[in-house]
Amino acid sequence: MHVSDKNILGFSLSAEGNRSFSTWNPVLDQPNEDTVIEATLDEVDAAMQLAQKAFASYAQTSGKARAQFLKRIATLLDQQRDFLIEKYTLESGLPADRGVTELNRTIFQLETFATRISIEDWNVLQHDEADPMRKPVPKPAFRKIAIPLGPVVVFGASNFPFAYSTAGGDTASALAAGCPVVVKSHPFHAGTSNLVAQLIQQAARETNMPDGVFSHLNAHGFEVGTALVAHPRTKAVGFTGSFDGGMALQRIAQARQIPIPVFAEMGSLNPVVILPNSLKLEADAIAEKLVHSITNNAGQFCTKPGLLFVLETPQTSAFLEILKIKFGSVSPQCMLHPLIAERYEQLKKQLVDLPQVERWVEVKANKPTVGSPQLSRTTASFFCVEPLLQHEVFGPHALVVMCANRLELMACLDTLAGQLTATIFGTEDEFEKAPEIQLLLREKAGRIILNGVPTGVEVCDSMHHGGPFPSTTDAHFTAVGVDAIWRFLRPVTIQGGSIGLAK
Amino acid sequence: MHVSDKNILGFSLSAEGNRSFSTWNPVLDQPNEDTVIEATLDEVDAAMQLAQKAFASYAQTSGKARAQFLKRIATLLDQQRDFLIEKYTLESGLPADRGVTELNRTIFQLETFATRISIEDWNVLQHDEADPMRKPVPKPAFRKIAIPLGPVVVFGASNFPFAYSTAGGDTASALAAGCPVVVKSHPFHAGTSNLVAQLIQQAARETNMPDGVFSHLNAHGFEVGTALVAHPRTKAVGFTGSFDGGMALQRIAQARQIPIPVFAEMGSLNPVVILPNSLKLEADAIAEKLVHSITNNAGQFCTKPGLLFVLETPQTSAFLEILKIKFGSVSPQCMLHPLIAERYEQLKKQLVDLPQVERWVEVKANKPTVGSPQLSRTTASFFCVEPLLQHEVFGPHALVVMCANRLELMACLDTLAGQLTATIFGTEDEFEKAPEIQLLLREKAGRIILNGVPTGVEVCDSMHHGGPFPSTTDAHFTAVGVDAIWRFLRPVTIQGGSIGLAK
Repeated sequence: MHVSDKNILGFSLSAEGNRSFSTWNPVLDQPNEDTVIEATLDEVDAAMQLAQKAFASYAQTSGKARAQFLKRIATLLDQQRDFLIEKYTLESGLPADRGVTELNRTIFQLETFATRISIEDWNVLQHDEADPMRKPVPKPAFRKIAIPLGPVVVFGASNFPFAYSTAGGDTASALAAGCPVVVKSHPFHAGTSNLVAQLIQQAARETNMPDGVFSHLNAHGFEVGTALVAHPRTKAVGFTGSFDGGMALQRIAQARQIPIPVFAEMGSLNPVVILPNSLKLEADAIAEKLVHSITNNAGQFCTKPGLLFVLETPQTSAFLEILKIKFGSVSPQCMLHPLIAERYEQLKKQLVDLPQVERWVEVKANKPTVGSPQLSRTTASFFCVEPLLQHEVFGPHALVVMCANRLELMACLDTLAGQLTATIFGTEDEFEKAPEIQLLLREKAGRIILNGVPTGVEVCDSMHHGGPFPSTTDAHFTAVGVDAIWRFLRPVTIQGGSIGLAK
Repeated sequence: MHVSDKNILGFSLSAEGNRSFSTWNPVLDQPNEDTVIEATLDEVDAAMQLAQKAFASYAQTSGKARAQFLKRIATLLDQQRDFLIEKYTLESGLPADRGVTELNRTIFQLETFATRISIEDWNVLQHDEADPMRKPVPKPAFRKIAIPLGPVVVFGASNFPFAYSTAGGDTASALAAGCPVVVKSHPFHAGTSNLVAQLIQQAARETNMPDGVFSHLNAHGFEVGTALVAHPRTKAVGFTGSFDGGMALQRIAQARQIPIPVFAEMGSLNPVVILPNSLKLEADAIAEKLVHSITNNAGQFCTKPGLLFVLETPQTSAFLEILKIKFGSVSPQCMLHPLIAERYEQLKKQLVDLPQVERWVEVKANKPTVGSPQLSRTTASFFCVEPLLQHEVFGPHALVVMCANRLELMACLDTLAGQLTATIFGTEDEFEKAPEIQLLLREKAGRIILNGVPTGVEVCDSMHHGGPFPSTTDAHFTAVGVDAIWRFLRPVTIQGGSIGLAK
């Protein structure tokens, strides 16, 4: 397989523009060979018009037919995994084993959605039988079904070139729902994205899906993304990335004549509360888990724990010593892109320049694209008054917040903004005696983890990956697991008549 | 029972303001006796702070406990029905029998939500068992539950003083979800609203709900409503009313530092397509149904059919003659308020002042607060180019759109904005031969009615009352039926640990 420099418009290729760009190899700190040609605004319009045309027939395909399409994508991804993973490592700086895990997850996600929509009447939400004899008026039959919203625009995420990008969760759930998808590829991994897009195009052809069910546009700046969200044919947006990026799209979507939903997952600090009693027996294991969760793949996960709240107790002091030693011995890892590495350094500096924040443990990297893992430390009282401490530091960093007592801990938790996750380490006894900690964290987060780490998001029916603002734009919906499909469906009730058409 | 002029702040009464107002009797066209005192911004803040305080304990009450509260409200409404309906008729100009129907519906709604939340584990959405033996990593247990968002602000609707106002669907679903409610009463029926609010206050006391679970503020202008939506303690808004009103609230909510969802139901034109074959046998019955649906209670329903699309056939001509005669013989009815009657006249005039719109049938009323029922008529080609024809005319009016053929009909339907409902009259044979009509209407509406009328919204599990923008702000959710509860809940997944707390 080879990267094409062209944009994919349904079953065609297009390269009308005159701006091209290449991706960056962060390990070698030099540009990659492939270049891609940025989409023009005409190509944006062509992709959306084609998507709308495809929607008329795609929305009417059966769940089983769409499942074949998704499964074919999964099979092709599997067959081409060597090409994909090679390009993935060149463009992301992530190791091949992470690429394998992520590709497997992507394949699993596609298969999971395929399984869901293969179930007979999967889209029938409720139904009520007619009751012609009811007084004072007869009751007609009602059938509430879920129908697709229309063409969906998906923005690739920098940190998940497979699982949250071109064939990732947003694309899989939108295609499963019956919505054509137009992907704006992430400029950091435009080549990987193009390879995946070629496979989706091939799968669409082979399973007789309509021309335009999938398009793929290259873009380096903001112009293409802005035009996609503003386009009248676009009916919903899936985005995973920064707060600023997500909110920019949300504002465009709300300013449209007909506003549309933007399902933006905008990151999180993922607070961790460490209660003292579990440290008696498990300090070593907990420190091990946390260090890995903070630093693995250079901490470039939306669920990376970025805040550790500890109570000042003898157990805690011993735990912090262990944590310090373990953290001090991690190997720095390459970051996704020089810009991300640069931003990471800036954010750490901004933190430790604050009066009551200490650079507690640092592992110095010797290359500019490698992120230096760092634990910073501050006091609860400062945490409660300094909003900068609630800015996500994307990379292998966490801030330890020292709480003198429970009161300080609760005060800190109370100031927390919305989060994707919140974690508590403790004994069953501690959980039972202090339910207020979990109850408060539930107000702040979309997932509570007890004695585990927030990274390594399980893809299952009962997963919820979505939390209160600013972690997402809509806490009602998840971006992971089959329930992610509901973002791109809406209910319609068919009242009366025969039910022949009511599917 | 007597109307109190005070605002209700939890279990207390408050009247710090110096502005008061009274409601209007549209039948007598004179002010009613009662006056109420407008809430101050301090009282807005007090209500929201009290709601937040109540939320801490109210969110933790069991579904069964909250069900007792809702059922007690229902019982008190039933016991005081004579007082309530008397005030209702004085303030709304609606007849007593409509008041009875609406109060029964309100009681039924409260009981329906109570029944739903009495089910064990009603708020457990999904769960996955732990699998400690899973390779390569053990699987923890997952339990996805629904938790309440927090304090909800509800705006009373002018046209449903009972069922969509103080103790209406928004309040019932928010209270059922575990969210304290602050109602801004509708100024047209502030007295009715106060009586209902007194009963909710009483029910809260009697069932040991926390102080602040419910508050009720009087307001005539926009200041109180604006402050309520902007208040940092407010977590969601329920609104039923005009497009301009709903969008004003939506803009305030989106401009907040932490945006919140506004579930606004903003009205609809509820298009009706009349295919020729069913007119052969049922012209009389269809005309009868439509005339009633357009004019009953002066057409002041969000689901009133406001657009009738007919194909020019011999059957249609005969049908239109019947329709004209039946419509010409309806009795004009009093409207909710002089301002609504005045606005209705303006909107009709705006329509018939357009070049290709004809005032086809009119029943002249002889009092300014009585709405003159009217059918206007236009051509398909004009409908497709004139956006003013898609403005809702709130009152006993519908616009007949003459379509020369199927092509013109489809072109008209294609230009339709989002609707709460869309209706088709036809034979089973016609439905089967022209599925494209229903499929296109599904793209436009939240409910499709086959051979029925959109008014008289059934309260049942499979009802969906919510359609694409501009009929609502979020087509994913319904404002009628028990699923309305999901607006005020969000999922949280509890991962790992014991499940003792995970409810």
